[in-house]
Amino acid sequence: MSAAILTIGTELTRGEIVDANAAWLAERLAELGHEVRQIVSVPDEVTSIQTNLQRLCGDSSLVFCSGGLGPTSDDITAAALAAMAGVPLETDSGTLACIERRLTEFGRSMTESQRKQALVPRGSFALVNPRGMAAGFELQWSGATVYSLPGVPDEFRSMFLESIVPRLPKAPDGAPLQLMLRCFGLGESQINDTLAGIEAEYDVELGYRVTGPEVLVKVLSRGTDSVAKADRAITVVRSRLAEIVYGEGFESLAATVGQLALQRGWTVGCAESCTGGLVSQLITAEPGASDWFAGAVVCYAERIKQQLLGVDPMVLSRAGAVSEPTARAMAEGGRQRLGVDLCLAITGVAGPSGGTPEKPVGTVHFAVASPQGTQHEVHRFHGSRERIQRWSAIAGLSLVRRTLAAAKRD
Amino acid sequence: MSAAILTIGTELTRGEIVDANAAWLAERLAELGHEVRQIVSVPDEVTSIQTNLQRLCGDSSLVFCSGGLGPTSDDITAAALAAMAGVPLETDSGTLACIERRLTEFGRSMTESQRKQALVPRGSFALVNPRGMAAGFELQWSGATVYSLPGVPDEFRSMFLESIVPRLPKAPDGAPLQLMLRCFGLGESQINDTLAGIEAEYDVELGYRVTGPEVLVKVLSRGTDSVAKADRAITVVRSRLAEIVYGEGFESLAATVGQLALQRGWTVGCAESCTGGLVSQLITAEPGASDWFAGAVVCYAERIKQQLLGVDPMVLSRAGAVSEPTARAMAEGGRQRLGVDLCLAITGVAGPSGGTPEKPVGTVHFAVASPQGTQHEVHRFHGSRERIQRWSAIAGLSLVRRTLAAAKRD
Repeated sequence: MSAAILTIGTELTRGEIVDANAAWLAERLAELGHEVRQIVSVPDEVTSIQTNLQRLCGDSSLVFCSGGLGPTSDDITAAALAAMAGVPLETDSGTLACIERRLTEFGRSMTESQRKQALVPRGSFALVNPRGMAAGFELQWSGATVYSLPGVPDEFRSMFLESIVPRLPKAPDGAPLQLMLRCFGLGESQINDTLAGIEAEYDVELGYRVTGPEVLVKVLSRGTDSVAKADRAITVVRSRLAEIVYGEGFESLAATVGQLALQRGWTVGCAESCTGGLVSQLITAEPGASDWFAGAVVCYAERIKQQLLGVDPMVLSRAGAVSEPTARAMAEGGRQRLGVDLCLAITGVAGPSGGTPEKPVGTVHFAVASPQGTQHEVHRFHGSRERIQRWSAIAGLSLVRRTLAAAKRD
Repeated sequence: MSAAILTIGTELTRGEIVDANAAWLAERLAELGHEVRQIVSVPDEVTSIQTNLQRLCGDSSLVFCSGGLGPTSDDITAAALAAMAGVPLETDSGTLACIERRLTEFGRSMTESQRKQALVPRGSFALVNPRGMAAGFELQWSGATVYSLPGVPDEFRSMFLESIVPRLPKAPDGAPLQLMLRCFGLGESQINDTLAGIEAEYDVELGYRVTGPEVLVKVLSRGTDSVAKADRAITVVRSRLAEIVYGEGFESLAATVGQLALQRGWTVGCAESCTGGLVSQLITAEPGASDWFAGAVVCYAERIKQQLLGVDPMVLSRAGAVSEPTARAMAEGGRQRLGVDLCLAITGVAGPSGGTPEKPVGTVHFAVASPQGTQHEVHRFHGSRERIQRWSAIAGLSLVRRTLAAAKRD
């Protein structure tokens, strides 16, 4: 049961908006066991829409269209599909009644362009739009089922979930199953080498996705015993990758750290220099972070390290701001001043300037102070300022994760 | 001169990542005067890649491929293109030397999967990858020029800008000129209404792009005197939008704030509660932030507001953590404790929980303390936690910008 997605709009092919509908829908379809074979974006042009739709209907049994159903002159999807199917457009009376009701609520009257939003190809099944005005529809054509939905993300998503999912054919037995492990600490190619042989031995496919510093390892299995095969393979992957695996599925590193902190009953704080608040931002992006995260000092200026974290000026002047002693003093001072059980400190050279031969751009010192003492690590990252900051933040969170996991085992 | 984009990766057709490369590239191509006719995403499969590439090369003279050039077993783009062109893969010695140099820096040795990243189709022109290992290439095939680049966004973007733009055929004469103003403070439709009539009067097209809280206004002019027309139009747009315009082109709001702070000679700090470090992160993402930004206190727990910012416990218990008195006390306390000229404070309810009928989710108080006194603002934002945090951070930076701009005029 293969599927295709056609997103329609010149704003897409001009790159003015990112095609978030397609990714959202592809993910839902994968969850439902339908394999998306192609995602295509075309401008608001009748020929482009028709040519691509004909091709996609030949390749896939389910084709989903997004966009071009609104009230303005550049909204031409319904007309293009009707012409392709050789049927006229006709007004869906249910949708027209909804539009009238909405306009009355707003105290407005019906215009010709609003009326246009109730037009669907004759013979199609009109789909209600609970969040907007334009009707969607389902059209049988050339052996495929074509769904057409408005491109406004909120409308697109709710109509798919509420009107289309109940009408979708069930995915075939033995639909592919995918499990995903999240890793930090080795590069994609090292992980690939570590996992050599697993594909053949366990009859699965391995895939990799690099999202900045993190590498996601995907285990895909097909066929009748796909669940058992995936389970066996993932156990082996986990044991080979050991400590670098921090989570599963779509769980973030910050969320994993939060779970461990809650299990351990520890509060957490940060003293951030070169990451400038990024670690705190990643943590507080998680709902419920206030249950375990107290706060942070972003000590960008050297005097803040002294005044707010109590770092000894002698340590700063002797070892320098980017050094093991300063990182340790920041973590220990932060732990005390923030009143937390565990404090992560990060100090480094994010660049592009500020590097020296001894401490080149990308040199970053980490320390974690906890009831079990203070751990230190130093790393050298490469690339842009943004990249160094992101790698530093993830490496810092990873150190916290390992500290919490080790403490848990004690 | 029409173009097409083919993004390759099962993570795209499974919706695991949003295709940001395609939108970014489509926008760059539009700026350069090349019209993108189609954007297609396919899984990591030889047949899908080849079939679509053949079709796109028939329709467009420039075809850009992204992804599938890495070291792992699912990276098959180079092999698929070589097979399609009927040529073998061969090692690009320049790239191999780069990979070796990088590995030596990291203290690692070359593996087979790393060596794979230097393979390009025979007869193609290899493109240097300054940020990573995998080579890109340019291939002439079937009357079209095909560019293949790694999918890692940082590598994709820098290679396009540095290696491909200089090699691209020039766009036709009278190619459109586009200028962009960056705004915060009014919605798209309000801005649209404010600028009514400008298109006809100045012979330009106006376009809008909403990037979260910010609205970018694009002025597009065509024809022989496109520069003069765009200049005249942009002057009028600026004067009508007045204070809500904060920058031009790709300048960030944090960078604008930095320039104003340096002009004024003021240092800046933050006291962040519900934004959890996001403002500091946006500021320190800018190179040179240390010239004007001292640091921040992320006071996520209430006691941090007392201990590190000196907020009176009576203020907190009487007015609550999310209130005008607390925001003012945070800004004034932060200004004193951080030893800065200007301190921004943000406290609010980011959700999803924590809202009350009096202070619903999305209620955010802002204060800026400076030598000219303390200003306060309150806003009510809507949507997800992430959206409320982002809007709060931008609204906070915008308040700082206006405070600095007013101080400069005194």
